[in-house]
Amino acid sequence: RINPDRLWDTLMEMAKIGPGVAGGNNRQTLTDADSEGRHLFAGWCAKAGLKMGVDSMGNMFARREGTDPDALPVYVGSHLDTQPTGGKYDGVLGVLGGLEVIRSLNDLNIRTKHPIVVTNWTNEEGTRFAPAMLASGVFAGEHTEDWAKARTDADGKTFGDELRRVGWEGDERVGTRKMHAFFELHIEQGPILEAEGKQIGVVTHGQGLWWLQVTLTGKDAHTGSTPMNIRVNAGLGMARITEAVHRIAMDHQPDAVGAVGQANVYPNSRNVIPGKAVFTIDFRSPDLGKLTSMREKLEAEAAEIAADLGLGIEIEPVGHFDPVTFDEGCVTAVRDAAERLGYSHMNIVSGAGHDACWMNRLFPTAMVMCPCVDGLSHNEAEEISKEWAAAGADVLFHAVVETAGI
Amino acid sequence: RINPDRLWDTLMEMAKIGPGVAGGNNRQTLTDADSEGRHLFAGWCAKAGLKMGVDSMGNMFARREGTDPDALPVYVGSHLDTQPTGGKYDGVLGVLGGLEVIRSLNDLNIRTKHPIVVTNWTNEEGTRFAPAMLASGVFAGEHTEDWAKARTDADGKTFGDELRRVGWEGDERVGTRKMHAFFELHIEQGPILEAEGKQIGVVTHGQGLWWLQVTLTGKDAHTGSTPMNIRVNAGLGMARITEAVHRIAMDHQPDAVGAVGQANVYPNSRNVIPGKAVFTIDFRSPDLGKLTSMREKLEAEAAEIAADLGLGIEIEPVGHFDPVTFDEGCVTAVRDAAERLGYSHMNIVSGAGHDACWMNRLFPTAMVMCPCVDGLSHNEAEEISKEWAAAGADVLFHAVVETAGI
Ligand SMILES: NC(=O)NCCC(=O)O
Ligand SMILES: NC(=O)NCCC(=O)O
Repeated sequence: RINPDRLWDTLMEMAKIGPGVAGGNNRQTLTDADSEGRHLFAGWCAKAGLKMGVDSMGNMFARREGTDPDALPVYVGSHLDTQPTGGKYDGVLGVLGGLEVIRSLNDLNIRTKHPIVVTNWTNEEGTRFAPAMLASGVFAGEHTEDWAKARTDADGKTFGDELRRVGWEGDERVGTRKMHAFFELHIEQGPILEAEGKQIGVVTHGQGLWWLQVTLTGKDAHTGSTPMNIRVNAGLGMARITEAVHRIAMDHQPDAVGAVGQANVYPNSRNVIPGKAVFTIDFRSPDLGKLTSMREKLEAEAAEIAADLGLGIEIEPVGHFDPVTFDEGCVTAVRDAAERLGYSHMNIVSGAGHDACWMNRLFPTAMVMCPCVDGLSHNEAEEISKEWAAAGADVLFHAVVETAGI
Repeated sequence: RINPDRLWDTLMEMAKIGPGVAGGNNRQTLTDADSEGRHLFAGWCAKAGLKMGVDSMGNMFARREGTDPDALPVYVGSHLDTQPTGGKYDGVLGVLGGLEVIRSLNDLNIRTKHPIVVTNWTNEEGTRFAPAMLASGVFAGEHTEDWAKARTDADGKTFGDELRRVGWEGDERVGTRKMHAFFELHIEQGPILEAEGKQIGVVTHGQGLWWLQVTLTGKDAHTGSTPMNIRVNAGLGMARITEAVHRIAMDHQPDAVGAVGQANVYPNSRNVIPGKAVFTIDFRSPDLGKLTSMREKLEAEAAEIAADLGLGIEIEPVGHFDPVTFDEGCVTAVRDAAERLGYSHMNIVSGAGHDACWMNRLFPTAMVMCPCVDGLSHNEAEEISKEWAAAGADVLFHAVVETAGI
């Protein structure tokens, strides 16, 4: 078993970096706080005897040698970046849980056959730079490095410039590593495990996703002196499409969700009819047919809404992955570990996207989930118990050691 | 007649200060650009032999003496501040048209019985600091000076601090001046005069207004892993209320308008269901009954929408004035001037709020309007012709001189 107190203290130590405004964290990717968090993690890795490699997307790989010089490493990890108003565990538990696996192996003086590598993937959240899981996506060959580095944040800064600015652009070519397997521990970010009273979620599948960015173009005009019948109101178009997103998701129940997360009107002045609106849509389902259908229906309805109001419309896909089926062998390793350790468990579908979803394209991959209070995540009030964290890390430990061999 | 070229050149000179991004202006109130525009105007006034007074709200008063030492001045003016993406004429024409009246009197060596004072009112637009017509409202006793100076912009800076920072807080106590009459020349900011082919609008009434700021409180949560049925989506609430504002305005046709100008969701992240939304509603009508009814209906519907979605709701009024009926004598002076000069004219209701609306509470007041292309205003593409500007200033000139006496 891993050391629950040490894991918890390590989580709390990391949470001091990039504090939020309500008890959580704002450690967005490639900010100074993200860089500081990386240095803290790198220091812990060095103390644990790991050798750090950093690739050209800023992905961090901390390696513990194995006994077989020819064996590919087993990778574990997740991400240290957070939402602007994020929690202390989303991603962080997966990285520091991986570190705890290493520390426990050191404590127990266990050497595995395969090396073990603890990974911190850059920009998993996708808030500052869309899409999410950007750097693991480049690693997996889903995006080119040039395209990823040209992604801009709201201020127009590029991923590449910011990566260099914070000093985390490594020498290693991205995507050259080969993995024996990849395991990611993560909080559920949903309410199911807690509601079912299970300590462990054995993640068999992941939802697919479409992120669409919509730009509506109308005409800035005076809210007082412009008669209703000559208005070209981009904000009204945004409102109608927001409602359509919700209704379309409801029409595809169960196993489908949809929402508008970012919403901006221009010039955003009390007495100006918005001449422009830019907003993002997030549709997800574990069922590819539903996912495709939601996108298609929305595109058709949005075009109609825009035409009705005389608005120009552009819809740009800014993120996508198909539903994921994780590797049977790795999933079994997770389930067996939970069983062996006596933790209650159930199969679960990941509602969120994870770096593991990209790794699963290339290498045998699985995920371990632990519950979070009220299913709340992407919220500073995100909470888990020390026991839940420990159970998750224990299962990760056993699944990894089983896979890495002794 | 006034000098059309000089008026136009003066307008173009002012438009160089605080240029926008698309041919218009961004000279928001109490910015460095606003201060620079004030200095330019003050210099022109000094050259025209006027004596400048500045009150504690930053209102500027440039006085040309009359022949009767006991006669109260006739005031003319409007505002030099603009929208963030504003036009070159909204407000500016009224101030510089007033200056052109003075310059023409100087050219013609005419001395009026009553003094004439050209005025620049601070923060007419109300975008940076709500409500609109803030400083003329304090002058008219509608707001207290302390309240006005504590108004904050989006960055939390107060009106009072910014007024001092730019150096335009004058010694004169606000609201002590008495006026014989007040005249304001303004572009229509709507499509009616152009559509009717009239050169001059004789403004008989002004619409009343309600500005409401709505705050919805839901729960930040993950867009992927949060099931539809446990979401508390503040952005969806904003969308529904935006649609309700539109429908309520349509239900009160004709002579009613309504729109949402500012719309913000928090944390404004692609994969976070908005836990908070803050947005502003603008309802207007020349009919007090309709104005009141729109507000009441909206408040009732918004409360229902919020309750349906489980959202907290707060509605704060951030601007209000009742419909205005301008002074018969002053309105007649405007109409007679247009008639005498041979300009086509019609009665019109002002769709926008103006400083003249507050002055009308205290002193005999009227407005002169000239057309603008496509009725477009609060848009950098706002446009008028030199001839329209000249006709408006001519009518202002004659109405003012008639009222000030020779
Ligand atoms: N786990 C997580 O929240 N990832 C961010 C990408 C997503 O929105 O699913
Ligand atoms: N004239 C003008 O646009 N004033 C700003 C206040 C309003 O929105 O009516």
